[in-house]
Amino acid sequence: MGKIKLKELSTRAPEGLDKKETREKTEKLVAELDELQNLLFAEGKHSVLVVIQGMDGSGKDGVIRNVLGNMNPQGVTVKSYKAPTAEELSHDFLWRIHQYAPARGMIQVFNRSHYEDILITRVHKWCDDETAVKRMKAINDFEQLLQEHNHTHILKFYLHISPEEQHERLSERMKDPAKMWKYNEKDFEEAKLWDVYMQMYEECFNECNRPEWTIVPADQNWYKEYIIASAVHELLSGLGMQFPGLKK
Amino acid sequence: MGKIKLKELSTRAPEGLDKKETREKTEKLVAELDELQNLLFAEGKHSVLVVIQGMDGSGKDGVIRNVLGNMNPQGVTVKSYKAPTAEELSHDFLWRIHQYAPARGMIQVFNRSHYEDILITRVHKWCDDETAVKRMKAINDFEQLLQEHNHTHILKFYLHISPEEQHERLSERMKDPAKMWKYNEKDFEEAKLWDVYMQMYEECFNECNRPEWTIVPADQNWYKEYIIASAVHELLSGLGMQFPGLKK
Repeated sequence: MGKIKLKELSTRAPEGLDKKETREKTEKLVAELDELQNLLFAEGKHSVLVVIQGMDGSGKDGVIRNVLGNMNPQGVTVKSYKAPTAEELSHDFLWRIHQYAPARGMIQVFNRSHYEDILITRVHKWCDDETAVKRMKAINDFEQLLQEHNHTHILKFYLHISPEEQHERLSERMKDPAKMWKYNEKDFEEAKLWDVYMQMYEECFNECNRPEWTIVPADQNWYKEYIIASAVHELLSGLGMQFPGLKK
Repeated sequence: MGKIKLKELSTRAPEGLDKKETREKTEKLVAELDELQNLLFAEGKHSVLVVIQGMDGSGKDGVIRNVLGNMNPQGVTVKSYKAPTAEELSHDFLWRIHQYAPARGMIQVFNRSHYEDILITRVHKWCDDETAVKRMKAINDFEQLLQEHNHTHILKFYLHISPEEQHERLSERMKDPAKMWKYNEKDFEEAKLWDVYMQMYEECFNECNRPEWTIVPADQNWYKEYIIASAVHELLSGLGMQFPGLKK
């Protein structure tokens, strides 16, 4: 795959795609995901790590709630990475990440992730370019470790929204009582740094691409959910999993 | 440094070295280590990882008790790695290791370590050569992560004893009431695999050598303790540490 340029990638569903039909497909996929996850857990051979990144308002929480949140929580855990604590900062940046790497049989979802250490930190210049390059190597090594040493399949999703859509969604948070808890005045400050964020995201997609990122057009929730449900379904159904039978 | 061949390296102190004098030097070093560790903790900039490996009876516990155990336990923690639990086995082999990586300001001692995953596991063929090579790369990446991303200084010690000395020490465990708790009949079985162990150790010294290993002649406890006290002292006193002064 060539270098990713976000401006060249649409944030919307392909022209003419039927919303209702797509939603029905997603529902079917999500129902099957529950069965596939049960098989993953029972077989206990593979593990799955789903990394979700995106700008504020890109709908990370929604994907977790509507697509990944319908599987059995005994086998699916979600870790949301916020600003690091003092204890976390006193270790290498992957220390708090590695602890939540999925055990075999498990699906682990990261709502934000180690990628913040080369995104927000670079945008605000808390991390210089030299350190960023070292971090990218460390991330690649770490993801290789999980893939090669624990049968971990990594899916990395970037929820790609337009700045206009973001502005609308952030503004909604000021008006809708059910969304006000998400409102943070700082989000509007961050939004002004849009172009720098896009540049840092592009570098991260291009440098940390084993496995490659899926850029998910995310202006419409129905399409975003379909793409992610499809990708997780494709992965799980391609693992050739089998129930292990009676233990001998 | 050239390739390490254990058979060519003495397990004893250099001829003519005075035992009493050396013990006095060690005592002085150990007393100073307590001060240096206090400074490390106060400054909170560097972290230290001390890895101790060696055959059964090589005196790992003694080093910890007599050399490293005299510092303030608030700033020095010891993790002994035993056979992995079911939960540990359901993750990559470095998962249980990374959790105990030292925070800045701390000294972490590993009594056995991630190296067992390319030692005992290879000797017993639980891990094939191809996996071992991948594990060595993962170990090098991991140690690089700690060194580059958390100011971690890694000291790796191999306690080098002769098979004859080992036999004597293991036999003592059957006779001395204060040592019987360490007796394990399986140790004698493992001892028969001496040559294979030496070969696996050599590969691990030669392949995972950033930083290089210190091969410690360990047939005499007084000399072993002197070498390790000296190495830790040299590291800490070379860090150019300073008390940070009043916070502003």
